[in-house]
Amino acid sequence: MTKPIILTGDRTTGPLHIGHYVGSLRSRLEFQDTHDQYLLLADTQALTDNADDPDKVRRNVIEVALDYLAVGIDPSKTTICLQSQLPALAELSMLYLNFVTVARLERNPTIKDEVRARGFGRDIPAGFLCYPAAQAADITAFKATIVPVGADQAPLIEQTNEIVRRINATASKIILTEAQAVIPKTGRLMGVDGKAKMSKSGGNAIALSSSPDAISAAVKRMFTDPNHLRVEDPGQVEGNVVFAYLDAFDEDLAAVEQLKEHYRKGGLGDGKLKRRLEDILQVLIEPIRNRRAELARDPNYVIDVIRKGTERAKVRTEATKREVVSGIGLFQF
Amino acid sequence: MTKPIILTGDRTTGPLHIGHYVGSLRSRLEFQDTHDQYLLLADTQALTDNADDPDKVRRNVIEVALDYLAVGIDPSKTTICLQSQLPALAELSMLYLNFVTVARLERNPTIKDEVRARGFGRDIPAGFLCYPAAQAADITAFKATIVPVGADQAPLIEQTNEIVRRINATASKIILTEAQAVIPKTGRLMGVDGKAKMSKSGGNAIALSSSPDAISAAVKRMFTDPNHLRVEDPGQVEGNVVFAYLDAFDEDLAAVEQLKEHYRKGGLGDGKLKRRLEDILQVLIEPIRNRRAELARDPNYVIDVIRKGTERAKVRTEATKREVVSGIGLFQF
Repeated sequence: MTKPIILTGDRTTGPLHIGHYVGSLRSRLEFQDTHDQYLLLADTQALTDNADDPDKVRRNVIEVALDYLAVGIDPSKTTICLQSQLPALAELSMLYLNFVTVARLERNPTIKDEVRARGFGRDIPAGFLCYPAAQAADITAFKATIVPVGADQAPLIEQTNEIVRRINATASKIILTEAQAVIPKTGRLMGVDGKAKMSKSGGNAIALSSSPDAISAAVKRMFTDPNHLRVEDPGQVEGNVVFAYLDAFDEDLAAVEQLKEHYRKGGLGDGKLKRRLEDILQVLIEPIRNRRAELARDPNYVIDVIRKGTERAKVRTEATKREVVSGIGLFQF
Repeated sequence: MTKPIILTGDRTTGPLHIGHYVGSLRSRLEFQDTHDQYLLLADTQALTDNADDPDKVRRNVIEVALDYLAVGIDPSKTTICLQSQLPALAELSMLYLNFVTVARLERNPTIKDEVRARGFGRDIPAGFLCYPAAQAADITAFKATIVPVGADQAPLIEQTNEIVRRINATASKIILTEAQAVIPKTGRLMGVDGKAKMSKSGGNAIALSSSPDAISAAVKRMFTDPNHLRVEDPGQVEGNVVFAYLDAFDEDLAAVEQLKEHYRKGGLGDGKLKRRLEDILQVLIEPIRNRRAELARDPNYVIDVIRKGTERAKVRTEATKREVVSGIGLFQF
C-alpha cells in the first residue's frame, strides 16, 4: 500500500525556533515514518514579501535545511526540496492564476490578515496577492492529500481545493485530488515576552541553535504573572509564558497539572518553575545544537541533500504538470 | 556584429487574417533578414481570457504556425516557439510578480481598456491582471530590445521596463536591458463591416486561408459611403472600408490618390473600386492559401518546426533565467 502524501515546508526567511519545533517539526518526525513526506524550502514564496532582500531568502535556504536535519529529519525518508528550482511549480502557478479571480484572492481571509499585518496598504506585491494560487500549485504538483497548516492558513487549502475542482471540471476528469488541512493540536507557541507570535525578527524567539547561555537568559526574562510578587502569593497560570512552555514541552503532564494547582494556591516561586523549564529546554536543544554545528561544518553535504531531494521532487512535479497541461487540453509535444 | 533581438508573436485564439498581415506579418518578413527574430505562439497568454476553452487555444497553435509559414516566415531565419513549453517564462513571470504591485497592474491603461472590452467586471482572472508581468518575462527572457506592438499596447512595454529597472537595481548591476516599443506606421485595419477591429469572432475578417469566393463575397459586402447612391454622386473616402484597404494593400500609391480624388468629385462607382481591391487581395492571398494548404497536409513538419524553434528558445530563455536568479541573489545549484 502506498503511503499518503504529505507536503509541508517553511519560508526561508530565518533559522527555525522552538515554536516551529512544537508547531510542526515534532510531528514531521512522526510523519516521515507513516507518510510520503515532502518538505519544501519555500524561497519563492518567501520572496513574495521579501523582494527587497533576496540575499536573506538565499542564505536561509541552508539555515532551514540545517534545522531540518538537526532535529532528525531523515533525507532517506523525507524529501527536502527547493521551491525555486522546481519549474513545474511556477508553470502550474501561472496556469492556476487563470482559474481564480482577483476578487476571490482579495477575499481570502488569510491574505486579508497578512496584508494588514505587513502594512502593505495599497502596495501589495502582485506575487503576494497571488500566492494562494502558487500554494495550490505546490500542493497539487506533489499530489499531497495531507497539508499541515496553522489554523489561520486553513482558507488557503479551501482555495486550493476550489482550483482543483475547476481544473478537474475543465479536464472533464479527475486529474487532481482535493487536499485536507491538518491543524496541529498544539496552538502557536507565544514569544518569551508573552506576545502571541514567536519570531526571530520580534526578538522573542529561542532558536534551535541557541547556546546554553542564550536559553538560560531567554527563560530568565520570560513573562510570568506580574502580580505574583512574593512566593506565597497566588499566581495566575493563564497567559503565563512559563506554563505555556511547560504545556508544550514537559512530557510529564500530571506533574505540570500539580505545579499549576500549587502556583494558583500560592507558595510556588517563578524561579523554581523556570529552572524546571530551562532544564527541559537545555535537554531538548543540546543534541539539536550539536548536530547542527556538526552539519554546518560540511555545507556540501547539506547542499547535496537539497539537490538530491529537489531532483526527486522534480520527477514528481513534472509528471503532474504534464498531466494537468494535457488533461485540460493544452498543446504538448 | 550581432543582430538586434526582436520578439513578437500572437495569441493562439484563431487563424490570422489580412489585418495581421498588414499590421505585423508583412514587417516580420523584413525583420527576419535584419534582426534575430523570435515569434512566440502565445498559448499561455491566450489562456488568461480563455480558461473556459483550452481546446481552442491548443488547436490554434498549429493554425497560427501554418499562417506564419504560409506568408513566408522562414524557420531558418526566425525562431517560432511555443510559450507554454518554455518553463523559464513562467519562472520569470512568478519572480517579476514580486516586483510590481497590484495597484500598478490595475492602473495599466492597456489592462483597464481590455478589462472593460472583455466585460470582466469584478471577475478578472488573476492571470489576466498579471499578464503584463508575464509579458515582461517574455521580452526579457529573450533579451529582446525591439518589440513591435499596437499603439494601445505601448503601456505594457513601459511596465516591462519598470520591472527591468527594479531587477537591475536589486542585482546592483545591469542584467536586463530596456526594450523599445515599435509601433507600426499602418494603423489597425478595420473590419469589412467598417468596425474598428477586424476579428474572426466578429465575423468581419478575411482570413489568410480564404477561398477566392470568400474573398469576393467579403469585398462585395464591404461598407463604403452610404450616401454614395449613384455613380455620379460625390463620395466620401474617410471611413470608407474599400479605400482603407486600398491604402493598406495597393502598392500604387499615386493611383490610389487619383481614385480618391475622382471618388470625392463623383463619377466613380463602388463596383469599379471593389474590383480593383478584390484583384489585389486575390493576388495577395492566392499563394498564401496554396502554401498553407500544402503545409497543412504535413502536420508533422509544422510540429517539427515549432519543436525545434522551442528547443532553441529554451536555451536562450533558460540562460536568462539563471542570470536573473543568481543576479538578484537567489539560491541556485
